[in-house]
Amino acid sequence: MTATTALRIDHSGFNALFDQVAQMGCTPAGGLHRLAGSKEEGQARDIVCDWLRARGFSLHIDPVGNVFALLELAGPDAPWVLSGSHLDSQPRGGRYDGAYGVIAACLAADAIGRAAPAGCTANLGVVIWTNEEGARFAPSMMGSGVFAGHYATDYALSRTDADGVSVRDALQAIGYHGQDAGPAHPAAYVELHIEQGPELEATKTSVGVVVGNWGTMKYIVTMKGVAAHTGPTAMDKRHDALLAAAYLIAACREHSDRTGGKLLTSVGRLDVSPNSSNVVAEQVKVYTEMRATNNDLLTTSCKAFEAAAAEAARRAFVTYEILQVTDRPAGAFDTGLCDLIAQVAADKGLGHRRLSTVAGHDAVSMRKRCPSAMIFVPSVQGISHNEAELTHPQDLANGLEMLGEVMLRLVQGQTRVSNPPR
Amino acid sequence: MTATTALRIDHSGFNALFDQVAQMGCTPAGGLHRLAGSKEEGQARDIVCDWLRARGFSLHIDPVGNVFALLELAGPDAPWVLSGSHLDSQPRGGRYDGAYGVIAACLAADAIGRAAPAGCTANLGVVIWTNEEGARFAPSMMGSGVFAGHYATDYALSRTDADGVSVRDALQAIGYHGQDAGPAHPAAYVELHIEQGPELEATKTSVGVVVGNWGTMKYIVTMKGVAAHTGPTAMDKRHDALLAAAYLIAACREHSDRTGGKLLTSVGRLDVSPNSSNVVAEQVKVYTEMRATNNDLLTTSCKAFEAAAAEAARRAFVTYEILQVTDRPAGAFDTGLCDLIAQVAADKGLGHRRLSTVAGHDAVSMRKRCPSAMIFVPSVQGISHNEAELTHPQDLANGLEMLGEVMLRLVQGQTRVSNPPR
Repeated sequence: MTATTALRIDHSGFNALFDQVAQMGCTPAGGLHRLAGSKEEGQARDIVCDWLRARGFSLHIDPVGNVFALLELAGPDAPWVLSGSHLDSQPRGGRYDGAYGVIAACLAADAIGRAAPAGCTANLGVVIWTNEEGARFAPSMMGSGVFAGHYATDYALSRTDADGVSVRDALQAIGYHGQDAGPAHPAAYVELHIEQGPELEATKTSVGVVVGNWGTMKYIVTMKGVAAHTGPTAMDKRHDALLAAAYLIAACREHSDRTGGKLLTSVGRLDVSPNSSNVVAEQVKVYTEMRATNNDLLTTSCKAFEAAAAEAARRAFVTYEILQVTDRPAGAFDTGLCDLIAQVAADKGLGHRRLSTVAGHDAVSMRKRCPSAMIFVPSVQGISHNEAELTHPQDLANGLEMLGEVMLRLVQGQTRVSNPPR
Repeated sequence: MTATTALRIDHSGFNALFDQVAQMGCTPAGGLHRLAGSKEEGQARDIVCDWLRARGFSLHIDPVGNVFALLELAGPDAPWVLSGSHLDSQPRGGRYDGAYGVIAACLAADAIGRAAPAGCTANLGVVIWTNEEGARFAPSMMGSGVFAGHYATDYALSRTDADGVSVRDALQAIGYHGQDAGPAHPAAYVELHIEQGPELEATKTSVGVVVGNWGTMKYIVTMKGVAAHTGPTAMDKRHDALLAAAYLIAACREHSDRTGGKLLTSVGRLDVSPNSSNVVAEQVKVYTEMRATNNDLLTTSCKAFEAAAAEAARRAFVTYEILQVTDRPAGAFDTGLCDLIAQVAADKGLGHRRLSTVAGHDAVSMRKRCPSAMIFVPSVQGISHNEAELTHPQDLANGLEMLGEVMLRLVQGQTRVSNPPR
């Protein structure tokens, strides 16, 4: 083990940058409405990029808008320790989801750079991933998914929002459709994030060591009816796409109830056309998610879901198409990295527990590209994707200290990751 | 009875004007997307108004955008025989709904004006009503509703669309927020319309004498949940407004099924917020309609509906608000006018039958203001509120001849209406 380097992280600098970025797309209720590729997200990116450039980071923007801010500590051929998250939000979402991880990575990396530790075996990079939320453009975790090899660049760039605007056009409009490549040899990826669930708060634990992710399956079912006047059209002549959607939504909930809640199911979005009160709906897109820790349960549930979609369509006399947009089985993060995070928490006297993330994160994408892990800090009442999302300042500060120390030990080669990159 | 006047209606002029107006907001599939107060509706209004002005009609636009094109035949103090309909359409609706009645009234009134019949006891007016469809702004039948005294002008002007644009602003933008008043003494209102149902076609009948309207009750139920991440939020902690909406949609259909289809129910529109696939829906507005010929059945159904809304909310752990936006009992048109329409059909050798309209129409509003009735012509397969809406040229021509003759006999005082104006 090399000599320990004292890390002095600028917490007031963190607060200042966090607050400044949170102004971009802020809502009156103190949340964020900062959709991927929007003007507001562009402004948030600009602030962070300017901050990084001013501190000597070298910025590289790839074609899907991922920003890699690099700091060479071990020579150009050394691998890269990366940390980051995303700056896009849900519609009227919270200010901590994503932005916390990006800004903490900035401050942690800057502190490491200033400390100029001796004997580094890896370089350091801060990453802003494009469209983690998937609210404006599906699929979610798009930028990290491209970098990790799940999606082709052209596939990602050609996805469109509800108004038909492509990811390519949105990125060009905000100046983030770059031509650079990310680091070819990532050594490890560590992401700091708020928990977005209640477990840490309920157990009064400061640090979550995220050991894996729940499996997630997402579908878009398109119910196809016939537009008709809701007045003179006899009930037995209707082909009502919205009725079919309603049957499917209720069936999804029933599937979850039958598992006692072990299977999480949800429909959060419907695209109804023409969506006029006195027109029988011609087409409805039903955006469905299923999550579970058990991959067998997920597989069984997917079959049941497909049968439920067929039955809902049959009952409402409509046709349907089913498209699976996410197929992400439950999986584990790198055990060596998890042990390192737990060790750092212990060294700092912070209580920690191991848990799995139900939500998707860029680290879940990155797991396929290089050893990856996540650090969670508590979320008040587990509220997230809501303007009321909150993490207390002490928890934010603890997470930042954790991330800095974990990154430092990684660039100094003080740990061995368990899983070789695939 | 005065001497009969021969009426020469310009059918090719009708076709030309109809086709010209149908270009405004036309869709590639041959339908119309011409929402109330849109630029396209403004263009359609401009064409019709220019046509009327050029033929000597005096144009008056009231504050809610209703256009009254007046032709004095019996002196300024005589009452007014009115005919018209609307130029707004459903989203991707058909070209005949509304526009047919307006343009036929133009040609019929112009023919009567040119014939200059002797001994007129009433004047003549063509009306373009604002926002009959209710697709962009609720409630429907807005302009005629204001003229008939159902709604206050300020109430109508302050209604907003999904983007927050008010009726007032939309009318100002297209130049139809006028300051004139409509005729103070309407003697009768006759509206020509496509049936939008299958009865005339199925019975091979040329002319429908509309004797009354089905009752219609409309509600907006707002389900109020809590926005939450669809991942980490446990199922029993969710307050899912879209799940509540789904339960209500299914319940509405069940209510109809229990009556064997005598009660028509529908939900054609949902406003989902934030409508993101991985956010539990915070709020959903459910736009519901119920229609029946039997007012007792409607009253019972309204109570059942209100109970179903409460039950749906309870099951999904959300709160709700319920707002009744339309309360229109079944009712009868003027029997004297209906007899006149039947007599004219007989005189012209056109088969006719008496029927009720399930759909709402401006004539249903006007029933409260003056003796009113409607003439229907067949709709192919009863398809309406759909780009495939079609009425054959011979049926269009029959309806136009019918309307001209009915209006002529009315201005000549050849009939007595049965119900005094209220």
